[in-house]
Amino acid sequence: MTNGSESTAAGAPPLELVPLGGLGEFGMNMMVVACGDTAILIDAGVMFPEPELLGVDLIIPDLRQLQQYRIQALVLTHGHEDHIGAVAHVLPHVDGPIYGTPLTLALVEPKLAELEDARSRLYAVRPRDRVTVGSFTLEFLRVTHSMPDCVAVAMRTPAGVVLHTGDFKIDQTPLDGEHVDFHRLAQLGAEGVLVLLGDSTNIERKGVSGSERDVIDGFEEIFTSAQGRIVIAMFASSLYRMQIVLDLAFQFDRRVAFVGRGVIENSQIAERLGYLRIPPGVQIRDSDVRNFPSQDVVCICTGSQGEPQAALPRIAIDDHRHVKLEHDDVVVFSAREIPGNEKAIGRVMNHVARRGADVVYEGIKHVHVSGHGSEEELKLMLSLVRPKYFVPIHGEYRQLARHARVAARVSAGTKVVLAENGDLIRIDRDGARVAEKVPAGRILIDGTRSGEVGDEVLRDRRHLAGDGLVVPVVAIGRQSGAVEETPDVITRGFVLDARTETLLKEVPGLVAAAIESASIEERTDPGLIKEKIRVDLQRFFRKRSGLRPLVLPVVMEI
Amino acid sequence: MTNGSESTAAGAPPLELVPLGGLGEFGMNMMVVACGDTAILIDAGVMFPEPELLGVDLIIPDLRQLQQYRIQALVLTHGHEDHIGAVAHVLPHVDGPIYGTPLTLALVEPKLAELEDARSRLYAVRPRDRVTVGSFTLEFLRVTHSMPDCVAVAMRTPAGVVLHTGDFKIDQTPLDGEHVDFHRLAQLGAEGVLVLLGDSTNIERKGVSGSERDVIDGFEEIFTSAQGRIVIAMFASSLYRMQIVLDLAFQFDRRVAFVGRGVIENSQIAERLGYLRIPPGVQIRDSDVRNFPSQDVVCICTGSQGEPQAALPRIAIDDHRHVKLEHDDVVVFSAREIPGNEKAIGRVMNHVARRGADVVYEGIKHVHVSGHGSEEELKLMLSLVRPKYFVPIHGEYRQLARHARVAARVSAGTKVVLAENGDLIRIDRDGARVAEKVPAGRILIDGTRSGEVGDEVLRDRRHLAGDGLVVPVVAIGRQSGAVEETPDVITRGFVLDARTETLLKEVPGLVAAAIESASIEERTDPGLIKEKIRVDLQRFFRKRSGLRPLVLPVVMEI
Repeated sequence: MTNGSESTAAGAPPLELVPLGGLGEFGMNMMVVACGDTAILIDAGVMFPEPELLGVDLIIPDLRQLQQYRIQALVLTHGHEDHIGAVAHVLPHVDGPIYGTPLTLALVEPKLAELEDARSRLYAVRPRDRVTVGSFTLEFLRVTHSMPDCVAVAMRTPAGVVLHTGDFKIDQTPLDGEHVDFHRLAQLGAEGVLVLLGDSTNIERKGVSGSERDVIDGFEEIFTSAQGRIVIAMFASSLYRMQIVLDLAFQFDRRVAFVGRGVIENSQIAERLGYLRIPPGVQIRDSDVRNFPSQDVVCICTGSQGEPQAALPRIAIDDHRHVKLEHDDVVVFSAREIPGNEKAIGRVMNHVARRGADVVYEGIKHVHVSGHGSEEELKLMLSLVRPKYFVPIHGEYRQLARHARVAARVSAGTKVVLAENGDLIRIDRDGARVAEKVPAGRILIDGTRSGEVGDEVLRDRRHLAGDGLVVPVVAIGRQSGAVEETPDVITRGFVLDARTETLLKEVPGLVAAAIESASIEERTDPGLIKEKIRVDLQRFFRKRSGLRPLVLPVVMEI
Repeated sequence: MTNGSESTAAGAPPLELVPLGGLGEFGMNMMVVACGDTAILIDAGVMFPEPELLGVDLIIPDLRQLQQYRIQALVLTHGHEDHIGAVAHVLPHVDGPIYGTPLTLALVEPKLAELEDARSRLYAVRPRDRVTVGSFTLEFLRVTHSMPDCVAVAMRTPAGVVLHTGDFKIDQTPLDGEHVDFHRLAQLGAEGVLVLLGDSTNIERKGVSGSERDVIDGFEEIFTSAQGRIVIAMFASSLYRMQIVLDLAFQFDRRVAFVGRGVIENSQIAERLGYLRIPPGVQIRDSDVRNFPSQDVVCICTGSQGEPQAALPRIAIDDHRHVKLEHDDVVVFSAREIPGNEKAIGRVMNHVARRGADVVYEGIKHVHVSGHGSEEELKLMLSLVRPKYFVPIHGEYRQLARHARVAARVSAGTKVVLAENGDLIRIDRDGARVAEKVPAGRILIDGTRSGEVGDEVLRDRRHLAGDGLVVPVVAIGRQSGAVEETPDVITRGFVLDARTETLLKEVPGLVAAAIESASIEERTDPGLIKEKIRVDLQRFFRKRSGLRPLVLPVVMEI
């Protein structure tokens, strides 16, 4: 018994856990683990903004608290954007290597394009590898999730063992044969784990989430019955899903085109590293789709969340260079609906139906399976690890709270600490508790500017001479899609001089032109038309004046 | 065979069907049925606006096309707002009685408060009743749904029989013993139905939706295990659900308080008419909740959609006069999430979890059942009625399109007409088709003004002297909830004179005060805080000047 009656190893310094993201929201996962003179950061994720935050491309955690530590390593559990998207932003705060599995690092690499020396800091690890960071020994343990090469991290610290699950489910039939490392988890549990940090995403689901393989039957039915093209939207990271589709295409003698930047890039990376096996002769280019009969083609697309600029949403309104939907086509949404995106996704589905194509999604056929473990899987993790303390991570407050209740039922001996971003958890001989509140929050990132933009971007921007906020207000007839009157323009923090006034006078005309050049479907879809107006106006200001105001279109449907 | 080889009865005038709402969206259901010199309107529903349309309380269909007909009756299928909410608005266009079942009419009556003579036009009907309107004979047929006293309408017209299902599912064990009138539907099917208009809401769900009784087990588990209060949010029209909760409360010796205007009013109406039986001694007033031990209380609340002003959302942030959540309480969301409301509902759930109460919803326990038939039920309707023509109604385009596909499989002899709002469907000896496009769209209604507001409300408002648009722009720290700088105010169509400028100067302070007087939870919840700012500022302008600008707060979380 390594940690029996006492909370931490005798004489050990206190352990500090500082969640900076992912506790109280889905996304931007980030956690500091510190003990004595050693501190590491687990994951550096982003979150994608809600549609209201036009002009904002990414959201990352407030990083101020990192300055309180000398972070000696960044440890990445897997390659999803909510775990690696902010790597470039946190690197200045990390004085040491970046650890991750080969696939994870390959997905990080393109993000470091402008940080040449950063690549030399990437350090590939494999399951069961151990590395030493200051007074910590880190061990990587295989877990299964919706993409390959995911790990949990066991940290042997002076205070005891900290186990961070990363994102996981328990896929008993993983497509790549890489099982959860039950044996090492059990061994750690037997030896004594001080604190478990466990993924809470799916705690509200009963039972088990199921294997990635579970969607094969649903897709087989689609391949058997589809008369025309099969168009499948998925997350660009859904490499298992891609493999399943590629194998079925080979079996059913169809060609596969990747359509959209994300799926093209990720499939290339994964194929190069051996995580995706493309059967010979199956792949064609997106520009070749039109050269094959419909019944011979499968398209794997971006846009499963209804993002206006992605492949499927453009295809759905007949606005894609290479792919045009036809009557017998089947369009499959093979992804979950991220909360907040339901209406945008619904609109894309309606556009697809208008093209005469059949719409298939999770509610209709089993074409998606979650990568996060459900209640029984999360319980199994707790039972195997049987930690002294448990901190639910990755979820909104209600998922964390529910996971806390479940954990208390699984083991009366486990003490649960329910914390949110910015809660500094201290574990010492007196036990575990939220000891203080530290700075935490969100930084809004505008990808059109280079480098990092501070958390005062929106405030600053409104004060910058010649910058500011431009709000075009336009009324569109819902049925007609027509501009009902000359658009108005409201500005704020936008310096009015002779030059900018001339520019502003052109805005109503530009807004009207943007709307008139749009298809009827774009015009009657507030999400699409706002995005079009925003892109057009930002380009106009940038080209004509170098100004980069925040453009926030208000579209009223009347 | 009344209509064998020919499409309509020999020598009959053509039949016209004009959907004005509900075909291409969920909500604001409305359909003109016209043949020869007779025209009637089926349902007069509203839709509730998306959060972006602040200042708009309701949306109703564009009614211009009604002027093309002499509408001789308004026929209501049931008492949901998306079928009766616009009755006051359409009445000026109806030259005749309003038919509906007793419960439906009782729910309509309060809407006619300012139209005294309108009440004399209400005409109660019961299932199997027949009434004559011009050259039509209408017959009402019992169907089951999520509320009592719902009917389908069979219209015998000179061209043939038109059957409108209303909203329905096939509840084989209805709580009130009122079964779907299978026998009459079968009889009509045997005699020959020209056209069936069928509810498409749940066509994407496989199998059957289940009985209203199906939630009893889930609620029984909650009543058995709950240590504290049981707080249940539901639609105000969920009278079966209320009955189930009242009966369980009686059985488990708990008292029930209705909390929130909608559930209070509807429960009173339903009890008065005998649609709700409140067991003796069970009901208490909301103001008495605090006088009973937690474990003896059930609250039936409004706010299942996260509406900021409704009961549960206020309770969740400790801002309700009578009800305060405690640690052992259980909060049940006994309703579906209407698309677009997911984030608002999620925020309310997080607030509830922060109070330490347990959150239960459909995904966790079977505490909600849909009132709309799933695929097998919709097929059964098609099989019983086996119409010559079928028009899918009530759904977004993709549901209508899917229902069309399913109908084609059910009966090769049925011709499907896929139409949207504003498509005038004409059925004559040459068949059925969309013959022309007629005006259709949306009218935005501002409930703070009396009477009807035309579809130009937003445009007009911006031109009215002293009216216009006021956009307070405020930046709030996401974690702190603090106002990060003095709020800005943007105006448009708001006449600036000495008086209004004085008013505007007060706005930043008012916005800051509104935020400061809010709880931390309100402040960090964009939906709640926008609503609070809007309400406060509208009140300010109205009281101080009689002005009613559209207030559209922009809240940036930083």
